[in-house]
Amino acid sequence: MSMEISGGVCAPKGFLAGGIRCGIKPASQKKDLALIYSKSVCTAAAMFTQNKVKAASVIVSQENISDGKLRAIIANSGNANACTGQDGLAAARRMTQLAADIFVIDPVDVAVASTGVIGVPLPVNVIEKNIYALKASLRGDEQGHADALEAIMTTDTRKKEIAVETEIDGKKVRIGAMTKGSGMIHPNMATMLAFITTDAAILPSILNSSLRGAVKRSFNRLTVDGDTSTNDMIVIMANGEAANRIIADEGADYKIFCAALEKVCIDLTRKMARDGEGATKLVTVTVDGAANEEAAEILAKAVASSSLVKAACFGADANWGRVLCAMGYSGADFLPEKTDVSFISKAGTVQVCKNGEAVDFSEEKAKLVLSEEEIEILVKLREGSGKASVWGCDLTYDYVKINGDYRS
Amino acid sequence: MSMEISGGVCAPKGFLAGGIRCGIKPASQKKDLALIYSKSVCTAAAMFTQNKVKAASVIVSQENISDGKLRAIIANSGNANACTGQDGLAAARRMTQLAADIFVIDPVDVAVASTGVIGVPLPVNVIEKNIYALKASLRGDEQGHADALEAIMTTDTRKKEIAVETEIDGKKVRIGAMTKGSGMIHPNMATMLAFITTDAAILPSILNSSLRGAVKRSFNRLTVDGDTSTNDMIVIMANGEAANRIIADEGADYKIFCAALEKVCIDLTRKMARDGEGATKLVTVTVDGAANEEAAEILAKAVASSSLVKAACFGADANWGRVLCAMGYSGADFLPEKTDVSFISKAGTVQVCKNGEAVDFSEEKAKLVLSEEEIEILVKLREGSGKASVWGCDLTYDYVKINGDYRS
Repeated sequence: MSMEISGGVCAPKGFLAGGIRCGIKPASQKKDLALIYSKSVCTAAAMFTQNKVKAASVIVSQENISDGKLRAIIANSGNANACTGQDGLAAARRMTQLAADIFVIDPVDVAVASTGVIGVPLPVNVIEKNIYALKASLRGDEQGHADALEAIMTTDTRKKEIAVETEIDGKKVRIGAMTKGSGMIHPNMATMLAFITTDAAILPSILNSSLRGAVKRSFNRLTVDGDTSTNDMIVIMANGEAANRIIADEGADYKIFCAALEKVCIDLTRKMARDGEGATKLVTVTVDGAANEEAAEILAKAVASSSLVKAACFGADANWGRVLCAMGYSGADFLPEKTDVSFISKAGTVQVCKNGEAVDFSEEKAKLVLSEEEIEILVKLREGSGKASVWGCDLTYDYVKINGDYRS
Repeated sequence: MSMEISGGVCAPKGFLAGGIRCGIKPASQKKDLALIYSKSVCTAAAMFTQNKVKAASVIVSQENISDGKLRAIIANSGNANACTGQDGLAAARRMTQLAADIFVIDPVDVAVASTGVIGVPLPVNVIEKNIYALKASLRGDEQGHADALEAIMTTDTRKKEIAVETEIDGKKVRIGAMTKGSGMIHPNMATMLAFITTDAAILPSILNSSLRGAVKRSFNRLTVDGDTSTNDMIVIMANGEAANRIIADEGADYKIFCAALEKVCIDLTRKMARDGEGATKLVTVTVDGAANEEAAEILAKAVASSSLVKAACFGADANWGRVLCAMGYSGADFLPEKTDVSFISKAGTVQVCKNGEAVDFSEEKAKLVLSEEEIEILVKLREGSGKASVWGCDLTYDYVKINGDYRS
């Protein structure tokens, strides 16, 4: 079992982080340039957007991660450096070079990430001018983490961070993480940046499988608006400073590590859903009793992605017909006539549909249940043991407002 | 060439239509029960929702259309009669029986359609009580058409209707149509009801192919909110009263008929997109130069369906990065570096992206172009001759408002 601790990405031993304002967001006083650095070389793994239109930072980071090693991550907000052609690629490479220069390391050991508006040239000169100020901002404590996190946020309204501690081989092992992302989030991943640090000693291939397993049940079950971004990236760096016996196979130590990493990723996923653009509610959709886990996931995703279901959640309207309707066009098989639906929150549970038909329920109680900030739509089928939860949010006036004029 | 005429579904010879308020919408003074009737037996064809959760009316109409013949369509608004189990099926069959009784015809020659809230038992008794009043409302003129159309509308804010006249075999042939539908509209089709009448003489199998061809390039290229409903239905009845030589193969007469039918369907599709729930704009997305028509359609649909693109259209924000981003996750192949994007309206044309990168453009002019009520997003690729247009609308505050509390 892991327990939550403070410190974010600086909680694991040997990691520094920092963030400054360099001027990529000219009209804002917010930080826009972040750095995470490990004192020693790290085993690393990453996952990237599956969008065919990939930001320059995605292409460069994919190259740099291919040897399973990293020392640093440099990231900017305010500009996605996507749809920027050869100049964009050169700018992304320049960012890795600048970060490498200040530590006298190899630029292929630096990952680079960008988030913000698409199609505008990245002003890499302002990054260059401020690279030593960025280095000077590095700290090994919670403040360093907070500065870096602030510098990758765009329309985010909440800080999405966590650190946990667990025990492996009698040693304390820590995992720390930060994410940014609120709009354009959809399986698989989205304008989501997630940076995870750990002091676990672990082989690259094993780290890679643990990351893939955790992401499958967390970030890839998150939907905010159905759009999948050009810039999504999740990077984990493991520097081994916990001095545990190296995790080299999928044995008991691996399982402990995976459980802790999945906890981190699910926590961040829920925080991202709750911070969906304009969202007032975290909506968890759980499908249980499907033929298998894959079917449960497809059905739950369709419900969580439906604009009509999301708008009904905003209005606290127990319009369960939209739940069945979304399942019906999901593409997964299920028997409508063997479907039960309940709405659940800390205000209680209301069953609204049994065997695919309406049951009598109190509209007043349903309104109360759906007025909570965290609600769950629970769908029970009777076809097997497949179960999956997907996280999303409601669709609100503010979503439209935020996205109607994002660039202004 | 066909020309537009008045009269709607009553424009073709031999058709009557009517509509009344029977009380399915208890809180409203609006009409809620419609009837369309042909004096003689009709060749008929239909297409239905692909949602696994099908309304009772869809199941019954699918059975009744299977012999390629119809005489009447009875339809109600205010209640979808979906997720209502065996009682719902019995209610739908009862509707066909009631309509059959007043004309002394076979109930299998009646199609039935319902639209409205899901999961609430249909009060078929109020239909029964008013069935002779419904018969009495039948007229062979534009007013009959207008009454029937009003009775199938729910959140629709505009009347969506058209009639055209063309010449086949030296005879005047007419096609008239009405649709309802604004939310929950998505390929393939949606809470869309479309009723089409024609006095053409045409074989059932040939009528069926002409309908499928027209729908492929019209209703199936319409998206409002990505949800696909339980109740979608499009029905065409052809009574042969134009006395043309029967269209029995896919020759010259067929081509004239298809062109007229496609014109009708595209016109209604555009009207539905413009009347999308909360929409302030009709957005046409055209992809030209794709490898083939299928790829063009997939790419255009992804753009027209993107919540981020739709919100940007609402805000008249030339955020073309979102266009490329949506194409990138569409699943269709294309070369981002060979992609041009322009925004077009009657205020002019602004090219915003060339070869996948930004071009200098006037933000002021772009704002003007995108502030029009009808805008087009034109994507040019250089991979082949595949071309497709898809119709959608913007995402607005009012969409959220309408759907946040639809049932109240």
